[in-house]
Amino acid sequence: MRNIKALIEYDGTGFKGFQIQPLVRTVQGELEKALQNLTQEKVKVIGAGRTDAGVHALGQVINFSTAAMIPVERFPLALNRYLPEDLRVLAAEEVAADFHARFTACWKTYRYLFRRGKTEKVFWRNYALVLPADRELNLRAMQKAAQFLVGKHDFSAFCASGSEVKNYERTIWHCGFRKWNTGWALEVTADGFLYHMIRNIFGTLQAVGEGKLIPEDIPQILASRQRSQAGPTAPPQGLYLVQVGYYPWVKKHCFLDINGKIDV
Amino acid sequence: MRNIKALIEYDGTGFKGFQIQPLVRTVQGELEKALQNLTQEKVKVIGAGRTDAGVHALGQVINFSTAAMIPVERFPLALNRYLPEDLRVLAAEEVAADFHARFTACWKTYRYLFRRGKTEKVFWRNYALVLPADRELNLRAMQKAAQFLVGKHDFSAFCASGSEVKNYERTIWHCGFRKWNTGWALEVTADGFLYHMIRNIFGTLQAVGEGKLIPEDIPQILASRQRSQAGPTAPPQGLYLVQVGYYPWVKKHCFLDINGKIDV
Repeated sequence: MRNIKALIEYDGTGFKGFQIQPLVRTVQGELEKALQNLTQEKVKVIGAGRTDAGVHALGQVINFSTAAMIPVERFPLALNRYLPEDLRVLAAEEVAADFHARFTACWKTYRYLFRRGKTEKVFWRNYALVLPADRELNLRAMQKAAQFLVGKHDFSAFCASGSEVKNYERTIWHCGFRKWNTGWALEVTADGFLYHMIRNIFGTLQAVGEGKLIPEDIPQILASRQRSQAGPTAPPQGLYLVQVGYYPWVKKHCFLDINGKIDV
Repeated sequence: MRNIKALIEYDGTGFKGFQIQPLVRTVQGELEKALQNLTQEKVKVIGAGRTDAGVHALGQVINFSTAAMIPVERFPLALNRYLPEDLRVLAAEEVAADFHARFTACWKTYRYLFRRGKTEKVFWRNYALVLPADRELNLRAMQKAAQFLVGKHDFSAFCASGSEVKNYERTIWHCGFRKWNTGWALEVTADGFLYHMIRNIFGTLQAVGEGKLIPEDIPQILASRQRSQAGPTAPPQGLYLVQVGYYPWVKKHCFLDINGKIDV
């Protein structure tokens, strides 16, 4: 069997999330259906990030096993013929058998888009959080608060209930705001993310921007490990999975310390 | 009865065009339904441009008559409560009884968005014409060809069949390309447009960009008055109605000559 890694993008608006579920339209479901049509095999697709309903991807990574002898560079074109137009395969390569899109990912970058204003809302309603035109946000305070999240922390306070993980420690390498188009983006790169973590981070930083919290509250929120101490969960449509990083020489996992040194 | 003028925007993706039709979702249909809910009257909505299915509007203008005594500045908020989220009222004002959104419009500006590239196609599929990454376009030739369209011409060659107009003369004040976001835009301002005129203009200029026509073919195409001489009709999703101009002192129609002088 060959192990194929592929880069995909999708508009999350029309999907009930990445993960396959009966009776609803999911990214994994559409991919597996297209692969079955193409290869005549039952193929299981693994995704790097299991994005929620309404969340988008510019650079999601998947992998799957197949016996089909299609040249790997033909996979994008061949699969796209069977895929709906809100889901595209951008590239594919053959990888070692132990490559796993989720377990061997070293880091992921998510972007959360938000904007203010009363015009063009119809075009952004599914692609950004649109705040009322008169809602002032203190970006400087938000940027300062974001810096308190960088580093290795227990992110229990930013994890939605219903999560089954044992370890709530994650390392954020970068967390900051920048201008994006006619709005702003929060970009976060970490070695992994808990359930709803970015949306809870954004909701909390927005509360800072609105003056309901101050940047110096962030360390206490982290230390509390209580979801109730952090801000609300921001809506899904502003969120994009931008990039997933792998190190080709690392077999199973890789560990980077905060200075970017690799410790395998 | 009061005559209300309103500025609206919509994402055309989910509408079968502006004009009301039985059994399908239209912009006019949604507006009339919302107005009936708000005012308890049967209200007829007039639009400046009858955009096709899939065509968007950033600055469509409508007007309607009502006996409802709602303060005019409350209309946007009140109507938006009854409207779907892909259709918004941005502003409203009370105007003279002889204001007619279509017949008293002096000029309209449309924008046609296009871009190349194999990534982000899922996000642009409903909002721009996405050309293959390897499709080179000669923008310089397209810009030159666009200049031949400026002025007062018989645009029969750019009018789809099925149109019932008698007079095919229109005056284009401005026609040109500019960078827009990570793609390009063709912007056209004219005193009026024939059926499919912008989409046929774009299709023809694209043929110039691909080397199938040269800029100097445009005068001959105009002179032929034959639809078959011009290029194909570009798809609707790239097209936006951007702005509609009115002159407040002009009662019924206004006529501008090519130098911008007004001749009523």
